[in-house]
Amino acid sequence: MELSDIQSTIPDIRINLSRVGVRNVRKLVEVARVGKRPAIFISKFDIFVDLPGSLKGANLSRNFEVIDDVLQEAIGGEVKEIEEVCSRVARKLLDRHEYAERTEVRMESAYMVKRETPVTQTPCHEVVTVHARALAQRTSREPIIRKSIGAEVTGMTACPCAQNIMKDHAMMVLESLDMEKDKIEKFFKEVPMATHNQRGKGFLCIETDDDQHVPLEDVINVLKDSMSARIYELLKRGDESFVVMEAHKNPRFVEDCVRVMAKKVVGTFGHLPADARITIRQTNEESIHQHDAYAERHATLAELYAELNCE
Amino acid sequence: MELSDIQSTIPDIRINLSRVGVRNVRKLVEVARVGKRPAIFISKFDIFVDLPGSLKGANLSRNFEVIDDVLQEAIGGEVKEIEEVCSRVARKLLDRHEYAERTEVRMESAYMVKRETPVTQTPCHEVVTVHARALAQRTSREPIIRKSIGAEVTGMTACPCAQNIMKDHAMMVLESLDMEKDKIEKFFKEVPMATHNQRGKGFLCIETDDDQHVPLEDVINVLKDSMSARIYELLKRGDESFVVMEAHKNPRFVEDCVRVMAKKVVGTFGHLPADARITIRQTNEESIHQHDAYAERHATLAELYAELNCE
Amino acid sequence: MELSDIQSTIPDIRINLSRVGVRNVRKLVEVARVGKRPAIFISKFDIFVDLPGSLKGANLSRNFEVIDDVLQEAIGGEVKEIEEVCSRVARKLLDRHEYAERTEVRMESAYMVKRETPVTQTPCHEVVTVHARALAQRTSREPIIRKSIGAEVTGMTACPCAQNIMKDHAMMVLESLDMEKDKIEKFFKEVPMATHNQRGKGFLCIETDDDQHVPLEDVINVLKDSMSARIYELLKRGDESFVVMEAHKNPRFVEDCVRVMAKKVVGTFGHLPADARITIRQTNEESIHQHDAYAERHATLAELYAELNCE
Amino acid sequence: MELSDIQSTIPDIRINLSRVGVRNVRKLVEVARVGKRPAIFISKFDIFVDLPGSLKGANLSRNFEVIDDVLQEAIGGEVKEIEEVCSRVARKLLDRHEYAERTEVRMESAYMVKRETPVTQTPCHEVVTVHARALAQRTSREPIIRKSIGAEVTGMTACPCAQNIMKDHAMMVLESLDMEKDKIEKFFKEVPMATHNQRGKGFLCIETDDDQHVPLEDVINVLKDSMSARIYELLKRGDESFVVMEAHKNPRFVEDCVRVMAKKVVGTFGHLPADARITIRQTNEESIHQHDAYAERHATLAELYAELNCE
Repeated sequence: MELSDIQSTIPDIRINLSRVGVRNVRKLVEVARVGKRPAIFISKFDIFVDLPGSLKGANLSRNFEVIDDVLQEAIGGEVKEIEEVCSRVARKLLDRHEYAERTEVRMESAYMVKRETPVTQTPCHEVVTVHARALAQRTSREPIIRKSIGAEVTGMTACPCAQNIMKDHAMMVLESLDMEKDKIEKFFKEVPMATHNQRGKGFLCIETDDDQHVPLEDVINVLKDSMSARIYELLKRGDESFVVMEAHKNPRFVEDCVRVMAKKVVGTFGHLPADARITIRQTNEESIHQHDAYAERHATLAELYAELNCE
Repeated sequence: MELSDIQSTIPDIRINLSRVGVRNVRKLVEVARVGKRPAIFISKFDIFVDLPGSLKGANLSRNFEVIDDVLQEAIGGEVKEIEEVCSRVARKLLDRHEYAERTEVRMESAYMVKRETPVTQTPCHEVVTVHARALAQRTSREPIIRKSIGAEVTGMTACPCAQNIMKDHAMMVLESLDMEKDKIEKFFKEVPMATHNQRGKGFLCIETDDDQHVPLEDVINVLKDSMSARIYELLKRGDESFVVMEAHKNPRFVEDCVRVMAKKVVGTFGHLPADARITIRQTNEESIHQHDAYAERHATLAELYAELNCE
Repeated sequence: MELSDIQSTIPDIRINLSRVGVRNVRKLVEVARVGKRPAIFISKFDIFVDLPGSLKGANLSRNFEVIDDVLQEAIGGEVKEIEEVCSRVARKLLDRHEYAERTEVRMESAYMVKRETPVTQTPCHEVVTVHARALAQRTSREPIIRKSIGAEVTGMTACPCAQNIMKDHAMMVLESLDMEKDKIEKFFKEVPMATHNQRGKGFLCIETDDDQHVPLEDVINVLKDSMSARIYELLKRGDESFVVMEAHKNPRFVEDCVRVMAKKVVGTFGHLPADARITIRQTNEESIHQHDAYAERHATLAELYAELNCE
Repeated sequence: MELSDIQSTIPDIRINLSRVGVRNVRKLVEVARVGKRPAIFISKFDIFVDLPGSLKGANLSRNFEVIDDVLQEAIGGEVKEIEEVCSRVARKLLDRHEYAERTEVRMESAYMVKRETPVTQTPCHEVVTVHARALAQRTSREPIIRKSIGAEVTGMTACPCAQNIMKDHAMMVLESLDMEKDKIEKFFKEVPMATHNQRGKGFLCIETDDDQHVPLEDVINVLKDSMSARIYELLKRGDESFVVMEAHKNPRFVEDCVRVMAKKVVGTFGHLPADARITIRQTNEESIHQHDAYAERHATLAELYAELNCE
């Protein structure tokens, strides 16, 4: 039986499509590492091509063949970094979908990171959500590829505004108990006052050309150091008091977190090209509200650099 | 054309089924209230009957007719309370599914509650998740019906353990600054120390016979008063400082929240029969961890009463 | 006690922020309708302003006052359509955040729509997800406002490719049973062959200037008529056979659904300005896969019009 | 500084707690396999102990030490099966929480299974959700442990009722075209008629004593063979037509799927003790509705056996 191929016929309505493809394709991605066990990413992929108005359908099963090829290369050690996975897939898709001008691959992964707690150095794990994406555009020569790597990290934020009010209150009480000004000051230096604090989620994503290298570990570290305190899955008593103290010594609004990240991005990734696109987001799951507080910045590296140098 | 009715044939495999029905049926439930605008519940229903091994299928479209009847009665003012909706549906399902011995209806609703903030008395809303359920069992006389009404409420919890450590630290500092013991004590009475705090979710559900009345508003109030502080969607500065102060004056472990609820349940619902089944749960979205802390108790009202009186 | 206002101080890092605000604010929106009960939308709002580098924080509680004002106007009959809610809020936010150049409001709502089944005309409900958004940009004169209204509707899609294979097979069988060509043709005209079918989710969103009117009901109808068949919550036997027949008479790829929507958009909304921005998406929850099939188009109305007239 | 230990004090309200612990603890579980790469499970754990009314709090950080120990043993090859992970943790928790009478561990994991497509034998992956659980009860001798292993698998279901209606219609048409009765019968034998079909989710869980072995792969196979057809992530044309044909040759109600599973459970796991507890559930994401169809059975193996032998 000769199977008819409806997809390659001309459709009744010849509208171009911006994206055609598959979503929520789940894969285990193993990236080989020299001298270590492979890094494992539990990933969900979205894979798209554009489709001209002259074709009824795209052949979606090709997407699976391409992604399986690249994942095999990753296990084999040919793909060196998680950020390479998407751009490899995007590039190969252009070969397999000869009618497409653009291909796009998005990946969202759960990734387990090993840590040590700050005081007792107890080893523990945390989950980071990794986001990667690549866009390939066909040209008369080599395709142009832009790729992004990003992460979402959970930390702790403490509110400076409520802390200030609590401090004003404590000062009044200490004054009424006849403590001297300079001792009060010494006290507040050693003992940060209470405030509401909560889980915060920082997100940072960096888009560059395909030949740039943006280490995932650096992205994660910028995020972890931009909230009021790092958090851990396992805290012994000494660790817990350290984390709570840290958070209260570094109270930050949702706006502050984004600005600290922006500054750290310029410090950490300053060697990247000026047109690198930076997206920063912070969501605080406010403990005093049911809703979340949110701040965001997107800009080129050059724009962030210029704003910082105006200060 | 005579339509064949496969459902009423004898199946190849004559296994009884515990539950057959529909899930995730979304409905707008309006319960008329005297002198007020109707209470509106955005609800998702699961509706089940049991099925004997002698029948191939249940007629699921009857479930929709029954639920629509009851929702119509609610708008018309015939159903007086949200807790009545499920038991009415369960009872009518027994009539419509003559082969069933048991029927079960579960409802999960978003419900908007109006509040005033604690200091500036600003009006605001919060969302409460309402859970209701009814089980009807056919007997040779009237069916036996058990119904539950419950809610999940978001509040704030503050950790007593970390607060204690912070207090020990503050005491050491105050002592080193030569403050006298009794003044230190006075200070701590007025100024609670910092700790990690977070969103907590309290859940309380009460199962009784159909003729008991368990006001939803009482369930919600027990929950709101059992965490470290109530929270609000809109807080002016004075309200915010009040909420933060409250939370730090009432630090509670996840275990404490459940025990406070248990005590308040006995106080508020002591008139219910001894066999009323109580389920209490508290989940704290720990700001120092990615995971949640959790505690739970289920018991009859009589059991809770006995434990409280042993103290 | 004079409360200090940290938000209005100058931040250490003077980076501009693209969006600062609140997310997941849940509200019940009631839009009064002449001669009918009000339309009820269970909504989640995100509300943002931009923030200059010279300000440490935005005053987020103002967002709540503005939204509550507008929701009050909606109940009072002053807001005539759901699409107006977001643009009113966005406009008022510019007044309340004097430092902001841009404000943005996004709403996602569950909305219950009443329907009648196709054959037995039984009344039933379905849930539609409504999306609305408004952007206000401050200028030296009146602010420029762009607003969008959109919806996501669930329907049924049947695959033309698998159906074609099943038809080839059936034809072979009919030929082997000596049926004549013209009778075979008559048969296939009356009896569509089997294929895999599934839940499909169509999404359409239209962005225009604030003075345009895009009726939500028209958006929903375009979506419902673009998949293989409309679906219903309650189907009596005659209705069910009608829906299954419809779906199999109109097999459509995910790509086809988007193209049919594009054509219907031009037919239904042709009177809108040429720069109206159209976003169309279709997701098919493939019954033969764990992943979803997806197609998307975004374009101006003018671009869609041009492509359709090239055919 | 001597840290105070609030948890071990006597609480104000001496209510017993049924469960105290942590939820949503995410871990990567690697179970070593002889001659193969380790099986990888991306897991979420809930870990509980009971707490007497005489203790204010449980020491939750011990839970993390225990789970990390066991996961290390799994990598080391000491834990032979995924079903062993939970019971090992539950047993060790009894040692570490000397005040607890009961411990409980629940695990939910994403697990990638390798398959070959039915016709072209193309290799592909699918995700299975694995559920495991263990309960340990302290006694004067060895603890009593009950453990469960289960899975949720996605497949395809096709509705027998709508197919019957479509067949009646096709028969009428064939008769009107003067086809003979026996040829019509032959035709229907070769060509199954259309019906609505959809993603179905089958769930099977088996609870036994700790010394029984219930292979996960057997649980998955029972589920995959109980819906109308197995599904695959990558289907070449020949595979797709096979899957669609299979589904239409095996139309099954949600009730049928549960009964087929029950029969297969007795066939596959008949060697387990009579008191093994079986839970079976099927959810069909109906393509003609927004809601889901659902059926469920829980029973001992002995009960299922008795019902099957009554036929």
